[in-house]
Amino acid sequence: MSQLPKILSTEDLSTSDARWVSLKKINWQDQEGKKRVWEAADRRTRGGSGIDAVAILALIRSKTRAFPISTVIIEQYRPPIGKFIVELPAGLIDDGETPEKAAIRELQEETGYEADRVLNSSAILASDPGMSTANMKLVVLDVPLDGDMVSPNQNLQDGEAIVRRTIEVKNLYHELKEYEKKDYVIDARLLHLAAGFDLAERLRTGDIAS
Amino acid sequence: MSQLPKILSTEDLSTSDARWVSLKKINWQDQEGKKRVWEAADRRTRGGSGIDAVAILALIRSKTRAFPISTVIIEQYRPPIGKFIVELPAGLIDDGETPEKAAIRELQEETGYEADRVLNSSAILASDPGMSTANMKLVVLDVPLDGDMVSPNQNLQDGEAIVRRTIEVKNLYHELKEYEKKDYVIDARLLHLAAGFDLAERLRTGDIAS
Repeated sequence: MSQLPKILSTEDLSTSDARWVSLKKINWQDQEGKKRVWEAADRRTRGGSGIDAVAILALIRSKTRAFPISTVIIEQYRPPIGKFIVELPAGLIDDGETPEKAAIRELQEETGYEADRVLNSSAILASDPGMSTANMKLVVLDVPLDGDMVSPNQNLQDGEAIVRRTIEVKNLYHELKEYEKKDYVIDARLLHLAAGFDLAERLRTGDIAS
Repeated sequence: MSQLPKILSTEDLSTSDARWVSLKKINWQDQEGKKRVWEAADRRTRGGSGIDAVAILALIRSKTRAFPISTVIIEQYRPPIGKFIVELPAGLIDDGETPEKAAIRELQEETGYEADRVLNSSAILASDPGMSTANMKLVVLDVPLDGDMVSPNQNLQDGEAIVRRTIEVKNLYHELKEYEKKDYVIDARLLHLAAGFDLAERLRTGDIAS
């Protein structure tokens, strides 16, 4: 990376000129039969799966127990926020692709890790249901390694600048707190996952009375 | 609730006609100095705090240990998805309000529970940074009760139809799975929180090798 990305300018965009997103006016009827209006953002890219995107929780483990169970997160500049964001590996689902295939593909492209199997695939989740039609699945993938931790080559597309980082699962919440000190912004879903893990640990140790 | 809410029709909305959201064209320069364009949705309602919204994880506990530590979630019809969504209590931050005050206010309005204090307030989080400027904080609130579980009156605004439900923290992931069977959609952030909790439990019990 030769220089820091930056925002040059921002302007209003009309729905008719937008290629990737649009605004929708939703006419709906509430529980009392009253007609109402809601405004929402919508992705133009949703394919036949009916699902926009997947996020991937990779569980990277050593068959010889050479390292503790770990996961991989990514750092990526995101123009809508104008900062580097720390996220789970994620991506849009191609037309004709299943969410689980998309998860295995995106994990390999963004991090180099090859998943052996799908451990869990969530139901369809609403990404930000107050303002957006965007939806997604969280897919948990098993990444067994023969022995020591490895760092396989990423397979990034032209123009993608993604830094990947492996972290012990039990250190995830602490590491996200460290990122916050360094002007990174954390993706809400990743932070919620780590906060849930941390809550379980605090209840177990009695740090929060159960 | 006298009838089920429903979508009547959906149409394209131009940014100039939208009141709550807009589309933005972001001109930016990438790490190689190349000028690029990104499209994003933006809320028009952000106030002086610079943060759109808060979500609330309430930890409801009994001073006499009459019930296990619990939390409260809400069910609400969301027109962008066209389904009932299961979410953490949440809301937009009013102009001039701190995120923590907004969290205490929204918890009281949507669920009736009165928080004693803020246990944790996250850094600013990106809600869906690939398509939206939306940001938020996750605020953890302490809700100590004198003895048994109670169900205080909600304080809903005109037209709001929100069902609240208290759930033992350790049953949250399981209960979300039950909702999925009943045509509810889970908010991605709530599911990630519960999945993180579940992952910690599975590592602890050896259900997933650590």
